[in-house]
Amino acid sequence: VTAEIAFGEVLRRHRKDRGLSQERLAQVTRLDRTFISLLERGLRQPSLTTLLRFAEALGVPASELVRDVEAMLRDSSPESPD
Amino acid sequence: VTAEIAFGEVLRRHRKDRGLSQERLAQVTRLDRTFISLLERGLRQPSLTTLLRFAEALGVPASELVRDVEAMLRDSSPESPD
Repeated sequence: VTAEIAFGEVLRRHRKDRGLSQERLAQVTRLDRTFISLLERGLRQPSLTTLLRFAEALGVPASELVRDVEAMLRDSSPESPD
Repeated sequence: VTAEIAFGEVLRRHRKDRGLSQERLAQVTRLDRTFISLLERGLRQPSLTTLLRFAEALGVPASELVRDVEAMLRDSSPESPD
């Protein structure tokens, strides 16, 4: 799992938890719906300010979105537990 | 305070806490030292993967870096506490 794939899954999960369509999330964040679709498919990655915009729109701290990403990366990684 | 300015201060603080020069952090992260300098001055912003590279190099979760940024933005913001 790459960071992009992990973020895409985290974004989709939080969006659906709030019952928002990609279209609606695009309106709230004033981001392009195509960009959101690319992000959810792991084909783009967010900048810090994009992270903060999603966080505000989803009512969840950006740090929590990043924590979810890190958890997914950790779970999928065979690296040492250090 | 913008997100860029906040991140720059957070990055500089964590880097100095570890006793690393910009040069050394650049080597460890394999990022350009000029880019790191621009980030610390709030003139660029990191992507998610750049955040994760700094986190690994600094031995601190990326979510903690973002949490520090959010705390700085909150402290500097006169917005409603909602």
